[in-house]
Amino acid sequence: MNVQMKERQELAPTTNTGVLRLVPLGGLGTIGKNMMLVEFEDDILVVDAGSMFPTAEEPGVSLIIPDMEYLLDNRDRVRAIVLTHGHEDHIGALPFLLNDFGLKVPIYGADLTMGVVRHKLQDQRVSSEDLDLLRVVDVESRLQLGCFEVEFFQVNHSFPSSMGASIKTPVGRLIHTGDFKFDERPIVDDPVNEERLARWGEEGVLLLMADSTNAEEVSPTNSEATIEDNLQKLFEEASGRIFVSTFASNVSRLQQVITLARRNGRRVGWVGRSMFTYGNNAVQLNYLDFNKQEMLSTKEINNLPGQEVCVLITGSQGEPMSALNRLSQETHRDHDIRPTDTVIVSASPIPGNEVAFYGMINRLFRLGAEVLYHCLVDIHVSGHGSQRENQRMLSLLRPRYFVPVHGEYRHLLLNARNAHRVGMHEDDIFVLEDGEVLSLERTGGPGSDGLPETRAWYDEHVSATQILVDGHVISDSAQIIKERHWLKEGGVVSCVIGYDPRNRRMLGQPLIHTRGFLYPEEESEFHGPAHQLVTKLFHKLTARGVRTSPKDIEQDVRRALQRFCRSEFGRRPVVMSKLLTLK
Amino acid sequence: MNVQMKERQELAPTTNTGVLRLVPLGGLGTIGKNMMLVEFEDDILVVDAGSMFPTAEEPGVSLIIPDMEYLLDNRDRVRAIVLTHGHEDHIGALPFLLNDFGLKVPIYGADLTMGVVRHKLQDQRVSSEDLDLLRVVDVESRLQLGCFEVEFFQVNHSFPSSMGASIKTPVGRLIHTGDFKFDERPIVDDPVNEERLARWGEEGVLLLMADSTNAEEVSPTNSEATIEDNLQKLFEEASGRIFVSTFASNVSRLQQVITLARRNGRRVGWVGRSMFTYGNNAVQLNYLDFNKQEMLSTKEINNLPGQEVCVLITGSQGEPMSALNRLSQETHRDHDIRPTDTVIVSASPIPGNEVAFYGMINRLFRLGAEVLYHCLVDIHVSGHGSQRENQRMLSLLRPRYFVPVHGEYRHLLLNARNAHRVGMHEDDIFVLEDGEVLSLERTGGPGSDGLPETRAWYDEHVSATQILVDGHVISDSAQIIKERHWLKEGGVVSCVIGYDPRNRRMLGQPLIHTRGFLYPEEESEFHGPAHQLVTKLFHKLTARGVRTSPKDIEQDVRRALQRFCRSEFGRRPVVMSKLLTLK
Repeated sequence: MNVQMKERQELAPTTNTGVLRLVPLGGLGTIGKNMMLVEFEDDILVVDAGSMFPTAEEPGVSLIIPDMEYLLDNRDRVRAIVLTHGHEDHIGALPFLLNDFGLKVPIYGADLTMGVVRHKLQDQRVSSEDLDLLRVVDVESRLQLGCFEVEFFQVNHSFPSSMGASIKTPVGRLIHTGDFKFDERPIVDDPVNEERLARWGEEGVLLLMADSTNAEEVSPTNSEATIEDNLQKLFEEASGRIFVSTFASNVSRLQQVITLARRNGRRVGWVGRSMFTYGNNAVQLNYLDFNKQEMLSTKEINNLPGQEVCVLITGSQGEPMSALNRLSQETHRDHDIRPTDTVIVSASPIPGNEVAFYGMINRLFRLGAEVLYHCLVDIHVSGHGSQRENQRMLSLLRPRYFVPVHGEYRHLLLNARNAHRVGMHEDDIFVLEDGEVLSLERTGGPGSDGLPETRAWYDEHVSATQILVDGHVISDSAQIIKERHWLKEGGVVSCVIGYDPRNRRMLGQPLIHTRGFLYPEEESEFHGPAHQLVTKLFHKLTARGVRTSPKDIEQDVRRALQRFCRSEFGRRPVVMSKLLTLK
Repeated sequence: MNVQMKERQELAPTTNTGVLRLVPLGGLGTIGKNMMLVEFEDDILVVDAGSMFPTAEEPGVSLIIPDMEYLLDNRDRVRAIVLTHGHEDHIGALPFLLNDFGLKVPIYGADLTMGVVRHKLQDQRVSSEDLDLLRVVDVESRLQLGCFEVEFFQVNHSFPSSMGASIKTPVGRLIHTGDFKFDERPIVDDPVNEERLARWGEEGVLLLMADSTNAEEVSPTNSEATIEDNLQKLFEEASGRIFVSTFASNVSRLQQVITLARRNGRRVGWVGRSMFTYGNNAVQLNYLDFNKQEMLSTKEINNLPGQEVCVLITGSQGEPMSALNRLSQETHRDHDIRPTDTVIVSASPIPGNEVAFYGMINRLFRLGAEVLYHCLVDIHVSGHGSQRENQRMLSLLRPRYFVPVHGEYRHLLLNARNAHRVGMHEDDIFVLEDGEVLSLERTGGPGSDGLPETRAWYDEHVSATQILVDGHVISDSAQIIKERHWLKEGGVVSCVIGYDPRNRRMLGQPLIHTRGFLYPEEESEFHGPAHQLVTKLFHKLTARGVRTSPKDIEQDVRRALQRFCRSEFGRRPVVMSKLLTLK
């Protein structure tokens, strides 16, 4: 039986008294920019405040953040923000919340998370008063935030110290996993405390929100420890320097490489700005066992015998400005790749990054290096649990309701089906997309499972479009993005005509220039005929007895040039046509 | 030991007498647009003439074709073009060769290939005289093309009738595999005739060019037949209509679906233009066992009971204008997706297509359909052989030299290493990129292996840049593409000032307008200050005693606006600044 939940027949009662609401503002139906509001009467708790990097669909945009309209309309009720971990898609919107929207509420998270957040906010010149809003918590903390009693539990993920949240509400306990997997042999963290989860399960869990990123995968995600043997083999085989690239926030992976380097008589250097940001934070907080005295200098990386050198380097996605990508393009200031080097890319490309990723791999091979990546050897494991781990979480917590979170629509739906497959009733599973609100309320006294009778329904939507950060502006305008796509496809043709409105005469010659439109071999075919076309048309439009406004002239000239470009050159540039009015 | 072949120490002797040359013009170091020239003294043979679809790197471009400069400089020596199969990356440049470059030589290929080619050329209005250049050959044909004696052998691939070529040259026999795999249980074709290959191997093969697309894969590629059980299971489970999307050129897959549909009491409809192009061609040539009388009409697809309907539909990559993608967007004229439908996408996304592909999958799920794709069930096999199949080819043919073809650089290199691993000497393996020429010549009499003594060396490069087809122009200019990328990132700001050169005065107001740059909320911050800035600067630049040419003014205004946009708005639009001279 398929779980297909898109019926929205039940709508909200207008009063919110006694109603618990889940309001997803980002991260559902899309990857990244996670943000979930938990709301009960006068209190709102925000879980995560992430951002998303733009894809080719949003050219020129620097960042995408959740739609804050609903949150800001209800700002007085917001008690706190709790962070599950320090990845950008969970914390990236914080600078905007504080600086641009002035939402001043306490922000809670694990030490490693808050170290990253503090650095980020300082970078964005958040005031020191605002920095005082940051509070470190751990799995023993218990917070009363308005009517919500919040505790945290450790999960395994590619960001050590990641935590899920238990949120006790007047209607019952909610569990939010954050990003998670179960790892029996984690490198830095401990395994998940399953007894604690089971205890909550026994006490009664109203609703579980669980990470759906890997819902397409059936088999359990491998432990971080499983890649150690493969990495060790590569260390044995390498005769020269070793470069290992991974996300700098993946402290477990950094630790594995450092440990292996020591074991194999190599010292470790860091290359790339975020390697220092995340690495220093992790060393300071004792997540990373690395003595900064043992670190290789730039000179040592370049001059020591190759067998003594190991470099941790950023750029595992082939990001254009990253260190490894610049090495591959031979444009790095301090370093180069040599034919004796071994480059290990311990990551797999995030969808959309494939072309950049494989382009970098090709270039590294061209430089003669030995290059190892996920297609050739298992040197990366995901930080997210599969269907199996979601089943395990469900069997520990036995929630009454299930809301899959973190993923594109197909991931949410597949995780919903997964829950159905292991016994949840489809009426108790809710697939929400951003802005789709789930409401819950008590309808009776406590039952045998320790929870009151309840009902849950799809409530009225709230605004949840993509907010673009572009230079200094924060906007939900999609028009600019459309225009950029048009410009990208066909370039631009600008036509300005000097115009005397008194006698409707053209002054001088039409000024026509282009960018991204005209190939050098077409110059002569374009300019003469275009001038002629515009001049002739202008005279026709301004002939005695013809009624045309300046706007009409501009529009007709634009259309004529569009037709000309299309028929003579087979392309569709953006055409701008204006009269420069001179009296 | 690593095979790393980038030393180019040996250069060509200037005479070509007795020298056999391989000149790759496309398809090496990149995916797609395959084209290889085989050259001996007065004769040139062209193997394949492919095109490549542009990526996000080449916005607005419709097609990329190989650099024809060398080919056209030597057009009098070209004896023929032989085609290995009918995929675009092997035939897509033919219309340009015939229509735009006027290369009139015989074109040879299998019947199914030539059917596709004929259709394509007719579509591009190639003259009927040129159509007479098309010649159908098969595995029994033997052609004398200049000094080359050419035979063909069947290979398995996702385009039935695919053939490799044996090219006997005065220096020895070359084998070009085209795209290939070994399939013991192909659906439409026969398995590869290995005895024939082994016989050539015994007679002596000078050089093998082999498909490297899957050189990252170790295990053998599965037979087409292996997915049948999974497809059958999906047919059994589906309670409503079934849509199966695959490349229309994959006639084996079409046949599998048609056969399964019959077996399960469903009739088949076709949706999508290329389904008809390829399907009709395959039916006419008896590659597809399908009686057009049994085909479902549009009406029947929409009105028959769902269990009787199966639809073969184009769009397996999520291409924007494809039928399945339009269905997912609910913008298809004739059809829609219903919650009872099952959609089977029998393909995996080509790198670069992931975002479009998964976007479509998400939308199909949102419409309530059951969606099956490669992440969830094995319903696609590659058309290319892995390392294993390349080893098998090498062991049958035992070539003296090996040149990996078809792939990005890493694929070529990995296939080279693969050959080295099974015993070839690294001096006998040549990794060429487009434009890198390999020369071979006899240096002595025949040896025990039936081949003369020879030597091979990297020769002087020939021109091999990407040629862009963009509307009506065919150009190698990269400047336009750069400008489009700039436009895409920041939009465009145009500033025109009416200018009287006699007294160096501004006429009227500066005319400043933008596209893709200014968000609605920024209008007032931009226009007033920008006008002021430009006006003030103009007056400063034209003040008495200041020496500035009109060009200087244009340049200074442009720079000032660039600085203004960057400092006040944090973005970098393309700024066009011109004086409209009025006397």
